[in-house]
Amino acid sequence: MSLLPTKATHRQTREFNVRLVLRCLYDLGPVSRAEIARRTHLTRTTVSDVVAGLLDEELVEEVGRGPSSGGKAPILLRVVPDARLVIGLDLGEEAFTGALVDLRGTIHHEERIAIEGRDGTAALGLVYRLVERMLERAERPLLGIGVGTPGVIDTAGGVIRWAVNLDWQDLALASLLERRFGLPVQVVNDCRAAALAIYAFGATGSRPANLIAVKAGKGVGAGIVMGGELVHGDGYGAGEIGHVVVVEDGDPCRCGRRGCLETVASAHAIMDHLEGPGTDHGSDDSEATLDQAREAFERGDARVQSVVLSAGRYLGGAIAAMIGAMDIHRVVLHGSVTTFGEPWVASVRERVGQRTLGLLASDVDISVADSGSNLAVLGASALLMTSQLGLSLTR
Amino acid sequence: MSLLPTKATHRQTREFNVRLVLRCLYDLGPVSRAEIARRTHLTRTTVSDVVAGLLDEELVEEVGRGPSSGGKAPILLRVVPDARLVIGLDLGEEAFTGALVDLRGTIHHEERIAIEGRDGTAALGLVYRLVERMLERAERPLLGIGVGTPGVIDTAGGVIRWAVNLDWQDLALASLLERRFGLPVQVVNDCRAAALAIYAFGATGSRPANLIAVKAGKGVGAGIVMGGELVHGDGYGAGEIGHVVVVEDGDPCRCGRRGCLETVASAHAIMDHLEGPGTDHGSDDSEATLDQAREAFERGDARVQSVVLSAGRYLGGAIAAMIGAMDIHRVVLHGSVTTFGEPWVASVRERVGQRTLGLLASDVDISVADSGSNLAVLGASALLMTSQLGLSLTR
Repeated sequence: MSLLPTKATHRQTREFNVRLVLRCLYDLGPVSRAEIARRTHLTRTTVSDVVAGLLDEELVEEVGRGPSSGGKAPILLRVVPDARLVIGLDLGEEAFTGALVDLRGTIHHEERIAIEGRDGTAALGLVYRLVERMLERAERPLLGIGVGTPGVIDTAGGVIRWAVNLDWQDLALASLLERRFGLPVQVVNDCRAAALAIYAFGATGSRPANLIAVKAGKGVGAGIVMGGELVHGDGYGAGEIGHVVVVEDGDPCRCGRRGCLETVASAHAIMDHLEGPGTDHGSDDSEATLDQAREAFERGDARVQSVVLSAGRYLGGAIAAMIGAMDIHRVVLHGSVTTFGEPWVASVRERVGQRTLGLLASDVDISVADSGSNLAVLGASALLMTSQLGLSLTR
Repeated sequence: MSLLPTKATHRQTREFNVRLVLRCLYDLGPVSRAEIARRTHLTRTTVSDVVAGLLDEELVEEVGRGPSSGGKAPILLRVVPDARLVIGLDLGEEAFTGALVDLRGTIHHEERIAIEGRDGTAALGLVYRLVERMLERAERPLLGIGVGTPGVIDTAGGVIRWAVNLDWQDLALASLLERRFGLPVQVVNDCRAAALAIYAFGATGSRPANLIAVKAGKGVGAGIVMGGELVHGDGYGAGEIGHVVVVEDGDPCRCGRRGCLETVASAHAIMDHLEGPGTDHGSDDSEATLDQAREAFERGDARVQSVVLSAGRYLGGAIAAMIGAMDIHRVVLHGSVTTFGEPWVASVRERVGQRTLGLLASDVDISVADSGSNLAVLGASALLMTSQLGLSLTR
């Protein structure tokens, strides 16, 4: 959000103030009206007006009194966690997941539909079905729909520019969903969404200002949060590290070039190297195959170990380049490759340590995300909340 | 700047408002009081109060009347370009440069002192001498001192953590200068400073929100501006790409490891590869030697061509990794290696194209900075202006 919008009308000023107050309540609540005024630099009258409106809308509630600083103990306010729900969708490579997510990232209901090879219009039909099911189950006012999906996404326009496995090109998904369901929609790359989810709902206690989330799954991609904001880049391609070439004249990549990071660090790459390229391990087989590889890995199979640890080192090299460029200390790994566990993570860490300036590397914390939550669903929902309510995800 | 400072007193609210108004005037002026109120979301009374103070301080001036929107034509205001001066210092590897810089980046006076091998306390003495000379020449009120210097810098603390060629370690330069001269001081890595200079004073017309400036000189480093703000990273190491390993078991680097980008892409590396490692081409000789290499390069000497273009490709690979991670479309190159001209730049561009996703690479604009201005001096001055006046460098 720019501090200097191009042209602010009176109504926009009011909306700006509402967002500022909500952001303050969301990040710091329970908090008093006086404290909100101090923190937002708004007058007490403005804060009281805005809060009255938020109480009417039942977005905010009073939750008792805080410590007195001399006079009467002030009434404390907070955002009601389940005042609104978001329909979060994860258009994954093997299944689509829909969920009802509240303002604190709690999932109230979740469903999963296997894609079973559908693409194009058939895949779009699946998206509609999933939204309809969520609408039936929603027992609270809905804020909108947040969609996380692989591929290159123009988040400002809500357009999927390129999603290779669903055969979608320049699909205006946000407009389609907005017209069909009459709800605001945000569409975001799933790796970007995951970073936002980890930032917004992941850490308890103090949030880091900056973090990098790296997905090593069927594909490889990253999401970057900097100063509390998701980094989109000039063309919404920030985080597309999976298609940076890391091996000169390497294996062919699905993007059409050779030697991309995905060809050496993804789950797909691990399977290719174990079974020989060209083997079909798409769709339903791949999880089973990855499970077998993991068993062999844990048994100490030398060939599997070599392939998996090499994948970890390649990922570490890419992370080292990001740390060198951005000096971000918190790195969170997620995706199916993380199930190879500590030895794989150690290979990532070791390569990061070897490849970055000691002064920078010593403070870097590389961990694996909690596998229990659907990060794409949560992150896409968080983005929708930000766009609709200004609920920030800044500290 | 966070929207939610930890605790704002009444005085801090006033300072916040002054900065908001100044930022608006600096970025958009000439502009009317009414327009400032609309853009900053402050009341007209607050804006008038703040502007009255700024007129008293002669930071702002009235510059005629704008078009009427019905009533009386409004008085337009702007920041006086030379209302204040900053002492900008560039503690380069071969010489220290001092300059008096005004609020629009115009250099009013500049001096250069050769280091001649001095380091430690002797080098610090040179810094003091340079500041004293600038103080003698300043004919306008001074805002403070901005220092750009190679090495790892803690900008928040004003501490040079590591500057290998000056033999400075954990030198609290900001405190030393503040105590000696009674002026506010900002210290920033020279590559970061250069990025800010290009962003703040470089482009005419519309500024890009994001840019990467890459220095290929004696060392290699980058600076990143994102959303109009300089990216510092968690430990002020953002942009330290020169010490990311790019060649497995490569040549030894001055940082103590092997195969860092600096060992293949810097001016130093080019000389090493032409003359054999260990040859002394430090201090005064190096410019002459680089000139000779450039002549041989332009004559078409095959060995020199091969070394220089290889240096360009390595730099292109590092830039590709940054574009993959951040999707920034504007890349500006500077430093002595850029004097190899278009063939070298073409080798950088070619590698960027080969290594990044087509969808991203097609929009990338890689250019060479105007060599006429001292970017470290201008950027360090810009940072000081931002810290003292809140003059932003956002659009």
